Amino acid sequence: MAEVKLFGRWNSPYSHRVEMALKLKGVEYEYIEEDLRNKSPLLLKYNPIHKKVPVLLHNSKPIAESSVIIEYIDETWEGPSILPQDPYERAMARFWVKFIDEKCTVAMWKACSSPGEEGEKAKEEAAQLLKFVEEEIKGKKFFGGDNIGLVDFAANFIGYWFGILQEIEGLELLTKEKYPNLCEWIDGYINDSFIKDNLPDKDKMTQVFKAYAQAGYKPKI
Amino acid sequence: MAEVKLFGRWNSPYSHRVEMALKLKGVEYEYIEEDLRNKSPLLLKYNPIHKKVPVLLHNSKPIAESSVIIEYIDETWEGPSILPQDPYERAMARFWVKFIDEKCTVAMWKACSSPGEEGEKAKEEAAQLLKFVEEEIKGKKFFGGDNIGLVDFAANFIGYWFGILQEIEGLELLTKEKYPNLCEWIDGYINDSFIKDNLPDKDKMTQVFKAYAQAGYKPKI
Repeated sequence: MAEVKLFGRWNSPYSHRVEMALKLKGVEYEYIEEDLRNKSPLLLKYNPIHKKVPVLLHNSKPIAESSVIIEYIDETWEGPSILPQDPYERAMARFWVKFIDEKCTVAMWKACSSPGEEGEKAKEEAAQLLKFVEEEIKGKKFFGGDNIGLVDFAANFIGYWFGILQEIEGLELLTKEKYPNLCEWIDGYINDSFIKDNLPDKDKMTQVFKAYAQAGYKPKI
Repeated sequence: MAEVKLFGRWNSPYSHRVEMALKLKGVEYEYIEEDLRNKSPLLLKYNPIHKKVPVLLHNSKPIAESSVIIEYIDETWEGPSILPQDPYERAMARFWVKFIDEKCTVAMWKACSSPGEEGEKAKEEAAQLLKFVEEEIKGKKFFGGDNIGLVDFAANFIGYWFGILQEIEGLELLTKEKYPNLCEWIDGYINDSFIKDNLPDKDKMTQVFKAYAQAGYKPKI
């Protein structure tokens, strides 16, 4: 059995951030694609609580939750640091991951996928929350400074996924006019050679998310 | 100015867990009590995004989010370790903190504070979620083994706050019959001399939470 396995889904931003962390460290791994509408017995065995991707299996021991997995990867393998070295900067990075995961991404996803009043409320909320991110990224290339790190990975939904969803839904929530610094980061992030080569195909993503929307299927991202 | 300041609230489990972490490390700090219905300009300055307690100020630099603060404390000061040393065990500890914070505590709080169908649904959900915690603590004194650590602190709502709320509301959700292992942990946790001496007074808590309930005030814990 391979030492490292990753149970993921090609269009999940959470799977994707873990893949980026593994690749950044140069860890060899076996990738197992999951069908989220027909989850494998192994995924359910390794993540019995959340039953979600991603799950990392290292030496037969499973870890769930992408932010937890990324810290584990950073602590386990040599290579470029994913978290900053300084304790205060580490705390700030963890703060932003929580904020992006628990607040921004939730509101942005709802803004795209919820109809009526709930959707409108989510759009307003997302617009407010993104202002904090806009302020945080001001004057910086990446969230941690000059190199890609934890917060950039965590913000991949903002950086790539949301642009596609926004286009499908005809939203103008995250635009250069409203969020110039954040859009500059997005541009730098998705065009960074390391990231660019590994992003899921835009056309395929558009096709799939359009099909979801038409079928009224709202996958929990 | 004191090197370390903590902006907290005496009856907040999130403030309390940070206080426990500081005390475990033997860090001297100045405690500033906040009135959550009339927040101080300093709290709003130091936590402009969430506007919540706890906020730790170290050398004039603020940190918000209790789980982030506790990792910072563990990385910054000498003394007993709050997180395990082994990367896999650290990952497991972080997983459980997320699960307790994002799932269990949310459902348990709703079970106590939401009326009608929402409350009933939350009770069922909480009962299910607690089964995972019951299984996790089985055969162990504390979540990390023999010593109090990160997950015990994070579970303080389950360990102390919920018992008081459950009594006020007349619920029988978390009982020795249904969750014998978890109740054994609760017993060990709240009677541990270090914890016991620092828990907020039960009568005062009961009085305040009863008053909240009567006034229809549902503070976000």
